[in-house]
Amino acid sequence: MTEVAGNTSRRAVSRRLFTGGVAAALVPASLAPAAAAERTGSARTAAAVRAAGEERLLTLYAEKVGDNQLGYGLKPGEATIPGPLLEMYEGDTLRIELVNLTDEAVSLHVHGVDYEIDSDGTRMNKSIVEPGERGNYTWKSHVPGRREDGTWRPGSAGYWHYHDHVVGTDHGTGGIRRGLYGGLIVRREGDALPDKQVTIVYNDMTINNLPADQSFDFTATVGDRVEMLVITHGEYYHTFHVHGHRWADNRTGLLDGPDDRSRIVDTKITGPAESFGFQVIAGEGVGPGAWMHHCHVQSHADMGMAGLFLVADEDGNIPGHDPGHH
Amino acid sequence: MTEVAGNTSRRAVSRRLFTGGVAAALVPASLAPAAAAERTGSARTAAAVRAAGEERLLTLYAEKVGDNQLGYGLKPGEATIPGPLLEMYEGDTLRIELVNLTDEAVSLHVHGVDYEIDSDGTRMNKSIVEPGERGNYTWKSHVPGRREDGTWRPGSAGYWHYHDHVVGTDHGTGGIRRGLYGGLIVRREGDALPDKQVTIVYNDMTINNLPADQSFDFTATVGDRVEMLVITHGEYYHTFHVHGHRWADNRTGLLDGPDDRSRIVDTKITGPAESFGFQVIAGEGVGPGAWMHHCHVQSHADMGMAGLFLVADEDGNIPGHDPGHH
Amino acid sequence: MTEVAGNTSRRAVSRRLFTGGVAAALVPASLAPAAAAERTGSARTAAAVRAAGEERLLTLYAEKVGDNQLGYGLKPGEATIPGPLLEMYEGDTLRIELVNLTDEAVSLHVHGVDYEIDSDGTRMNKSIVEPGERGNYTWKSHVPGRREDGTWRPGSAGYWHYHDHVVGTDHGTGGIRRGLYGGLIVRREGDALPDKQVTIVYNDMTINNLPADQSFDFTATVGDRVEMLVITHGEYYHTFHVHGHRWADNRTGLLDGPDDRSRIVDTKITGPAESFGFQVIAGEGVGPGAWMHHCHVQSHADMGMAGLFLVADEDGNIPGHDPGHH
Ligand SMILES: [Cu+2]
Ligand SMILES: [Cu+2]
Ligand SMILES: [Cu+2]
Repeated sequence: MTEVAGNTSRRAVSRRLFTGGVAAALVPASLAPAAAAERTGSARTAAAVRAAGEERLLTLYAEKVGDNQLGYGLKPGEATIPGPLLEMYEGDTLRIELVNLTDEAVSLHVHGVDYEIDSDGTRMNKSIVEPGERGNYTWKSHVPGRREDGTWRPGSAGYWHYHDHVVGTDHGTGGIRRGLYGGLIVRREGDALPDKQVTIVYNDMTINNLPADQSFDFTATVGDRVEMLVITHGEYYHTFHVHGHRWADNRTGLLDGPDDRSRIVDTKITGPAESFGFQVIAGEGVGPGAWMHHCHVQSHADMGMAGLFLVADEDGNIPGHDPGHH
Repeated sequence: MTEVAGNTSRRAVSRRLFTGGVAAALVPASLAPAAAAERTGSARTAAAVRAAGEERLLTLYAEKVGDNQLGYGLKPGEATIPGPLLEMYEGDTLRIELVNLTDEAVSLHVHGVDYEIDSDGTRMNKSIVEPGERGNYTWKSHVPGRREDGTWRPGSAGYWHYHDHVVGTDHGTGGIRRGLYGGLIVRREGDALPDKQVTIVYNDMTINNLPADQSFDFTATVGDRVEMLVITHGEYYHTFHVHGHRWADNRTGLLDGPDDRSRIVDTKITGPAESFGFQVIAGEGVGPGAWMHHCHVQSHADMGMAGLFLVADEDGNIPGHDPGHH
Repeated sequence: MTEVAGNTSRRAVSRRLFTGGVAAALVPASLAPAAAAERTGSARTAAAVRAAGEERLLTLYAEKVGDNQLGYGLKPGEATIPGPLLEMYEGDTLRIELVNLTDEAVSLHVHGVDYEIDSDGTRMNKSIVEPGERGNYTWKSHVPGRREDGTWRPGSAGYWHYHDHVVGTDHGTGGIRRGLYGGLIVRREGDALPDKQVTIVYNDMTINNLPADQSFDFTATVGDRVEMLVITHGEYYHTFHVHGHRWADNRTGLLDGPDDRSRIVDTKITGPAESFGFQVIAGEGVGPGAWMHHCHVQSHADMGMAGLFLVADEDGNIPGHDPGHH
């Protein structure tokens, strides 16, 4: 196993991952840019305390990461791959200023939420940011609502993501390949809140642009409610799989109740720009252990699209796990 | 941007697309072969006025389109790619006579609805049509119903499609590649009815067999209820994506209500012979604009699997859109 | 059409398939290792008679099949590809002793059910079985339940599968390729029970490791409730399709009722290690016939990823079907 964070090289890591002794630990949830602290609190499923329709300002910096990668960050010099995990509640607005510290035009294109055409993040719609310049993007979200004609407009809640749409090609193929992507979670009031979160991006044949010989590991303790946001980018389809844990293949990854016929899965096919998320209780019914997560396309797994979901018992032990062996 | 219709070349276009000044406009909905006009009317979500169990006769012509493509059409010389969009209500029967104007055997194989084995459209089941001949296919549909054993039989409602199953190989690989495919929508009474419709077929690396340098564009006005039927054919998987608009990943693409946990998506992985459909309100919450739709597999987008969903404001303006630039 | 069973060559077939004159017939359901007979009985949808929380012992043998394939079996010398279809009810526990009759290390890794880390089936977690040795795996399952925090824990019910995780690579790429896989169905009390079952594994470009020139055929009589379990393995994505029959894209493949908005499909994209299942009524609304099932990726179908779902009328006739022609 290789640490994914904490070395002093130029290797970029998400600000959401901090170094642990053995592996990158999951971060406490709700590091969203604004007052999100009260949203997690102790009651995991409490209707969150919030001001509906909150508006937040945020600055994102696009910059080089290492030799040839690019990342988004919340401060200059702190760009990560994936970029910061952003969170909103339905009804919130996010006003983002993108500062381009790179030497080529970059942009910000988002999935799932509402934006007017001048926040499209495309060259065609003149919403890209030239080197050294700043640009503005406004993302809105909304609760579900009934239309005049009686049909329902879906709310914005979902496991979404953002990415560049201009580096390399007019579809951002180069920007995405080099790391310009990140996650966005829009919650509905009352949605269960996680203890810990992790963003897993299958980008071409990498996880989060990590070299194939680096295992993407993260830790939790039995009983933690762990939220995984899975995003795909690039050229290939993949099948995301995690050992010993399952989720519902619906909006939240959780069931409504015992009669909910959502398919329960532990493996899911996914292609570029798709995203999904879910919450599992670490070790529920299976106990602690070094639980693999990997792409189940056999050659992808064999080439290193794999890592460990390290679930420790309450004393911090992971049975059968030898940190020196992978 | 390139017009997809209206030129006088041999380029085939769906009869459902008519020429506009700038781009092919979406057609008014409900050009279904029989008395469907009263089904759309003004009330978008009205329970349609219809005779349950209606039986309709239809003649389809298979013929050459351009140099080497093939298409289905409602009249000789009017074949299009995709073929005519057909519509039924659950309970309806469609009796189709297929006239083969090509110089090779062709057939008609349908997904989603009921047909006896002699309407299978396969060589094995002796349901193909030799050159210069005519053949008959009967497609039935049904409402949901409870079986004697208490389980539910699903109704036929869905976003389906039809295609050749014999040209080139016994699986119709050549016929499909050359354009012998079209959409079929089966509605349930009470389903919301669209103002406009578009059929988008990802066939190998093309959209609707268009050359890579032709953008598949279509227009609407803010507030229009636009129905998109997405079909995949050929060899590759794709991820269909549209900017600024989302849908529910279920039978109708619409939610039952605010508690419906269907996943809301703006990107969906899809493979050969899959189909799905949905309705969006053009510009809802995002306003007018030139909204891209494209396959999100990066190389596919870069090679031209893209187009524009042109949403005009009430004065016909599309902010930021320069028809001369793409 | 080629018989898939009954020849005297070394060709392995699932014990669940027995030879018929024309094609391998589907087996009567519920050949699960333990007292499952009373579960099917006559009432298809009856709440099954069972002892909740039943614990069963089972021995599986891994051995060579033919020249270079591997299989799991219930007795030495009887390994099949796929391995035996295992069944549990939510709450049941399965204790499996794996006897390795091959000359390389093998293992057993399961999807969907609960197991502690020492039943992981991976080299890393020291749960593999050396040649000539025996190893133990315990699989548990559970009913849905409400957690203390108010969220729902999904039950184990689903269409799952098991496979080797160590032959060839640490992800079992060689073991899977050579045939070490099988199906697992976990039922919920009250789930509809089938009359017949078939396991269809798309493993690389084969169905159930059959040579491309062998058609995977199976038979039923109009009105039979036929359960299909579809599993994918290897490198490629596929689109499973069956002619004339459809299912709901949810946990059971069946609808809750007429308002259930699950998508009804007859074609589904699927990638390695995904699995899904459903039940159809043979010939419902379409009658008897030789109904093709095939991967709808055109080149895959053309290369032989196809077979017949042979639905006979009550006199045993299959209209239009010529057993000598395929
Ligand atoms: Cu992969
Ligand atoms: Cu594509
Ligand atoms: Cu295939």
